[in-house]
Amino acid sequence: MKAKLKEEYVQMDALEWKPFPAAFSTGGIRWKLLHVSPEMGAWTAIFDCPKGSSFAAHFHIGPGEYFLTKGRMDIRGGKAAGGDTAVAPGYGYESANARHDQTAFPVDSEFYMTFLGPLNFIKPDGSPLAVIGWEEAQAAWLG
Amino acid sequence: MKAKLKEEYVQMDALEWKPFPAAFSTGGIRWKLLHVSPEMGAWTAIFDCPKGSSFAAHFHIGPGEYFLTKGRMDIRGGKAAGGDTAVAPGYGYESANARHDQTAFPVDSEFYMTFLGPLNFIKPDGSPLAVIGWEEAQAAWLG
Amino acid sequence: MKAKLKEEYVQMDALEWKPFPAAFSTGGIRWKLLHVSPEMGAWTAIFDCPKGSSFAAHFHIGPGEYFLTKGRMDIRGGKAAGGDTAVAPGYGYESANARHDQTAFPVDSEFYMTFLGPLNFIKPDGSPLAVIGWEEAQAAWLG
Amino acid sequence: MKAKLKEEYVQMDALEWKPFPAAFSTGGIRWKLLHVSPEMGAWTAIFDCPKGSSFAAHFHIGPGEYFLTKGRMDIRGGKAAGGDTAVAPGYGYESANARHDQTAFPVDSEFYMTFLGPLNFIKPDGSPLAVIGWEEAQAAWLG
Repeated sequence: MKAKLKEEYVQMDALEWKPFPAAFSTGGIRWKLLHVSPEMGAWTAIFDCPKGSSFAAHFHIGPGEYFLTKGRMDIRGGKAAGGDTAVAPGYGYESANARHDQTAFPVDSEFYMTFLGPLNFIKPDGSPLAVIGWEEAQAAWLG
Repeated sequence: MKAKLKEEYVQMDALEWKPFPAAFSTGGIRWKLLHVSPEMGAWTAIFDCPKGSSFAAHFHIGPGEYFLTKGRMDIRGGKAAGGDTAVAPGYGYESANARHDQTAFPVDSEFYMTFLGPLNFIKPDGSPLAVIGWEEAQAAWLG
Repeated sequence: MKAKLKEEYVQMDALEWKPFPAAFSTGGIRWKLLHVSPEMGAWTAIFDCPKGSSFAAHFHIGPGEYFLTKGRMDIRGGKAAGGDTAVAPGYGYESANARHDQTAFPVDSEFYMTFLGPLNFIKPDGSPLAVIGWEEAQAAWLG
Repeated sequence: MKAKLKEEYVQMDALEWKPFPAAFSTGGIRWKLLHVSPEMGAWTAIFDCPKGSSFAAHFHIGPGEYFLTKGRMDIRGGKAAGGDTAVAPGYGYESANARHDQTAFPVDSEFYMTFLGPLNFIKPDGSPLAVIGWEEAQAAWLG
């Protein structure tokens, strides 16, 4: 007989920021991992992105939703290149298989994001470099 | 052949707050519906909860995750009653079938929440009163 | 630190059929509950449906997929009434919020089904009668 | 305003078997793609696996559930190696991040499977070779 899962609570300001792996970002991005869901393969985090920082190229394998609480985020190249430019407070839905060649922060920014499934970080030709899901995120977070 | 879904972006401060249905809340709760996912039955909203407001008793049919950005939220009776008391900035994971007899806001508060599946608002005996999912949320929002 | 879930295996012919709750079916439907997913709220079962049996009116709260391995199943009234009539071997996708006023078996039939989220059994006016998800299914199965 | 998704029905025996991509299997495996869910990134197929056939090494990125309707399937090395050996009729739940170094069919076999998220086919060192989800499956199927 399986039991209901326990509820969880995280006091976010009591949790320290940690550097996000340099293999997948530049410019000093830090994060707090808030939750992982081993059954569904979902995970939730908040990211602190200094001016000039960015994430490496990746696909969203499942849908992801972000809430930009501070700053500005250029997604899929930003609005000028046909993508989106989020300005806080902004909400976005990134659909399954959305390709993000670069996600860049022109000013100090912060966003909260829920992910279903992993990020597939890719090489320039689109082939997979590393598949980062709840389990890899948890391992990176716990160091 | 099915296509990828389009990404979505909502400029949150450009969207007007609307009253959340009085059948399911008291004290003047307002909301902005940010997204619905008809295939999975998921939806996302932000809620503005004045001091003294609360939500009516409900079950979370699937998991829900909240990010309390302002104020304080007493969940499942609050910490004193064995539930959780979130204080901004706070993150919470409410598991599938979590029962929320009352969710109350002792001070002006605001929270963002992603839901998988509907809320099952219940009568005092626990039997269902109304099942409010992405479709009912969308209908309530569009009025 | 959360662990990966364990894989599961069920030798289906070693499991006894049990009567499906009479509150939600007529005509002697039996079932085997194969799996429940407490985190997502998903569950999986196989149903043995004698000629003349049927399920009571319900909504699918999330998507469901069936594989009819034997017989014939009239869904949403059957093809003649604008619904579907599955003939084994047949596959069907019932989308979130699909309403099934009656699901009927004109011949001895068997189907396997994966459910995301509960069934919302309803009264003739569409209001909820009982919300049956992974937890209620597990309780009914374990008796 | 978003609409409910349409239900779908596939008469399985009216659909032709097609060869499953040789890059990911050996021994003449054939398949029928029954459904893709672009929003969740889910997909469903049935596989015909001759005696001696096998799938290449992969991870299940999200959970998968199979119903073996004919034959025998050695998973994660088979029971003798600590994995599972399914014998029809058998049901299995493969959890998110389950690693399948080889899935082999010692006799003519057939199984139906629902997948949430892609398969991550891997090189011997575990690094990703190809991530095959609903979109790649659909492209391979429509060929």
